Amino acid sequence: MENLNALKARTAEVVNLNRAASVLSWDQQTYMPPGGAEARAEQMATLRKYSHQVMTADETGRLLEAAEQEVAGLDEHNDEVGLVRIIRRDYDRATKLPSEHVVEFSKTTTIAHETWVKARAEDNFALFLPTLEKIYDLCRQRAEYLGYQDQLYDALLDQYEAGATTAEVEALFSNLREELVPFVAAILERADQVSGEPLHRAFPADKQAQFGLMAAQKMGYDMRRGRQDLTVHPFCITFSRDDVRITTRYDENFLSDGLFSTLHEAGHAIYEQGIPARYDGTPLGRGVSLGVHESQSRLWENIVGRSRGFWRRFYGELQQTFAGVLDDVSVEDFYRAINRVSASYIRVDADEVTYPLHIMLRFELEQDIFNGKLAVKDAPEAWNAKMEAYLGIRPRNNAEGVLQDVHWSSGIMGYFPTYAMGTMLSAQLYNAALADHSGIPAEIEQGEFSTLLQWMNTHVHAYGRKYMPADVVVKATGQPLQHHAYMNYLRAKFGEIYGL
Amino acid sequence: MENLNALKARTAEVVNLNRAASVLSWDQQTYMPPGGAEARAEQMATLRKYSHQVMTADETGRLLEAAEQEVAGLDEHNDEVGLVRIIRRDYDRATKLPSEHVVEFSKTTTIAHETWVKARAEDNFALFLPTLEKIYDLCRQRAEYLGYQDQLYDALLDQYEAGATTAEVEALFSNLREELVPFVAAILERADQVSGEPLHRAFPADKQAQFGLMAAQKMGYDMRRGRQDLTVHPFCITFSRDDVRITTRYDENFLSDGLFSTLHEAGHAIYEQGIPARYDGTPLGRGVSLGVHESQSRLWENIVGRSRGFWRRFYGELQQTFAGVLDDVSVEDFYRAINRVSASYIRVDADEVTYPLHIMLRFELEQDIFNGKLAVKDAPEAWNAKMEAYLGIRPRNNAEGVLQDVHWSSGIMGYFPTYAMGTMLSAQLYNAALADHSGIPAEIEQGEFSTLLQWMNTHVHAYGRKYMPADVVVKATGQPLQHHAYMNYLRAKFGEIYGL
Repeated sequence: MENLNALKARTAEVVNLNRAASVLSWDQQTYMPPGGAEARAEQMATLRKYSHQVMTADETGRLLEAAEQEVAGLDEHNDEVGLVRIIRRDYDRATKLPSEHVVEFSKTTTIAHETWVKARAEDNFALFLPTLEKIYDLCRQRAEYLGYQDQLYDALLDQYEAGATTAEVEALFSNLREELVPFVAAILERADQVSGEPLHRAFPADKQAQFGLMAAQKMGYDMRRGRQDLTVHPFCITFSRDDVRITTRYDENFLSDGLFSTLHEAGHAIYEQGIPARYDGTPLGRGVSLGVHESQSRLWENIVGRSRGFWRRFYGELQQTFAGVLDDVSVEDFYRAINRVSASYIRVDADEVTYPLHIMLRFELEQDIFNGKLAVKDAPEAWNAKMEAYLGIRPRNNAEGVLQDVHWSSGIMGYFPTYAMGTMLSAQLYNAALADHSGIPAEIEQGEFSTLLQWMNTHVHAYGRKYMPADVVVKATGQPLQHHAYMNYLRAKFGEIYGL
Repeated sequence: MENLNALKARTAEVVNLNRAASVLSWDQQTYMPPGGAEARAEQMATLRKYSHQVMTADETGRLLEAAEQEVAGLDEHNDEVGLVRIIRRDYDRATKLPSEHVVEFSKTTTIAHETWVKARAEDNFALFLPTLEKIYDLCRQRAEYLGYQDQLYDALLDQYEAGATTAEVEALFSNLREELVPFVAAILERADQVSGEPLHRAFPADKQAQFGLMAAQKMGYDMRRGRQDLTVHPFCITFSRDDVRITTRYDENFLSDGLFSTLHEAGHAIYEQGIPARYDGTPLGRGVSLGVHESQSRLWENIVGRSRGFWRRFYGELQQTFAGVLDDVSVEDFYRAINRVSASYIRVDADEVTYPLHIMLRFELEQDIFNGKLAVKDAPEAWNAKMEAYLGIRPRNNAEGVLQDVHWSSGIMGYFPTYAMGTMLSAQLYNAALADHSGIPAEIEQGEFSTLLQWMNTHVHAYGRKYMPADVVVKATGQPLQHHAYMNYLRAKFGEIYGL
């Protein structure tokens, strides 16, 4: 296994260079003084260059071919076989993109970010349009470089959800849409049944941080191997399985934002901390896809964190934390408030019921643009029309509409579907865990999460990137990803809340 | 200048990789959770490997030779000439050390650090002895690899103070010692003239931070290009001239530690922030040597920060910051307290008068060990004997003696002299600034530091690493480094305080 060992050492260096870049990125978003930005961009570029250079070097290709020979006789479930398989995938992807394309893509999206920020602030889509058109062209180019069997969009999707196809996503979304749209409409007719007022009171940030981290740790986020800092946009970032950090923000007049984003990011972190130690520092040592990652964050944020059982256990502590503020609010009214459904413009603020519609809208627009059915310049109007069709509301400006998300300016088309896939998967995984351990809801009501955590450790986290995402889903739940579990979850939970 | 430009691009990458490593090191000492240490060591090793690899590559040597041809006709004060000169110096040094030596040195000192921590905690020099002997052997080897003209110690010194020789340091220290030892003795006879009690009261950490940063910013530390965090050992670290950070620690029952270490590190930061923008990201873009660096930190910490004028301006604000705590202490008594002289065991706590004696002791021991006059195993006794000779006190244990400093465990022998050289230089530079601008003391008394800062910008910071440290000293002060200015400063200041 001489070549395999040399290949491991080489890919470990790639991992180290990428993780170093992650530390620099984390610092940039948390503590870096404003003056540091220019030099930081240079430092990041150098790290990315060497990471790419080591990964795509002829020597890597030679070692990879030799390692493939060395593991040829081994069982397909062997770790070494899985490692060589994922390195082949990463190597092929990295070598398919010409470095001029990578540089142009990176430069364009760096400038695009500033343009998007300005366009959004000024509600000026025309300002962003030429850049966005260029980014769509670059993504088309990228898809051609990467290659695909059926549709161009497959190549883009595959970057974030390996092996997933546009046809699969379309079928999944179409099935969900058929049931979800009338369900949403029925709830919105009864919108006055639930008040969100208790969440819009005075909640000091330090108290929010204290309660949120307490809850995240109870769920299983290990702070000896993690920490939390403040940023404009919450995120989770991994420097090793033993150093997985989250960030959040607090709105002192709205409890949900900081609290549930803490649980959401902690869910991502729990996944990364649960990757087996033997995979750490190798290409196997991280979450398998964005969709599966999102299943973990949505599980802890929503299925656990917005459950009645969870709050039966923790609402008293929450009331104590914000002494007096919630004295007149019963646990039942609090539970209803955090689960209030509304037709809203902004995806990241959407409730569990309407959220998938926000995603479908983006997926459909991206599809139409890549298929030539929609010109980029007509995206704002198409966006608004879809909002009206799905949620009955029409954005009053583009900041509430087509300009709201950062993704397009970053050139990560094909990314959105993973949010909804992960959301659906969270319910499918939870059901599978319940089938093995029916006592989980009762445990949650006792503030005990270890059975659920261990089930996820064993059936999801334990694989790292060893298998394809769809294989992990089948291994864990016995079937491919479907919409049923999530739709049933919504019907049961929100049907009861809204008296449907 | 085709080759020079390629050389610039190449060395910029080396700078970027080293700065990335600095960010990782800063994070490790400030925010990294305990679990992160193991993977962080791997990440650092990869960054160091590529930095060294790019610097020592044959291609770097080829470009360097070609660039030397390209700049051959230019004036010696030309920036390009200076750049090529410093790259030649760095390249020769980097290529002289075999990578096996670098790896062994790094591994040995990494383990040594833990051994030293344990030995110091247990007052067990025997535990540290085998490691320390090995480190002295490795330093001997390193000196042989680097080469020297006169003494082996020259090669070690040259790593931190380029071009300095052991003979020069010996002469400098010998001259200072002759005048300083009797001066210290005279002061210590009148030790009861000054009370340090006002500094040992209750000073909340957040108030210390507030006052310290205010003072540092007044002196010229630009917080849009800097920040301060908490660490066990204070330090200053540069990610670019526009991102220079300091760290400190606070003792809530002792004001001096946090306050003067803040001013000290801010002095280092002011130097790095003052490097010309056109040098940033190049091998010219940092402080020229440890000694010159220390002249800047000691200038702001001591010559300014412990001056009567400074406190005439800021003592009222200090009293207000710690409401009530210092009401019974006059500005004069406060001035005397922060300048109290005492025979003490620990270098980092030493006052301005006794400090150089702590350094001389280490320099002499290192010399004796490298010259074979002293066995490493006899270092504790030699240390204690020198303490008795210089300061009339004998350490009660090795934590107060030979085990107190981290440097030997890190293998940075030859480093200590730069502390005393910088201290002497601070006075010599201040005198030169006064010769140009006699109003500086009056300005300080108004809380105005820009004339002094601009003088340092122009006469020290502006050069970056373009010239040798000794040349910078001559350019700035008109003469080589000598002991007179510092000795005169001490006589005037402390003679008055102690009524000598």
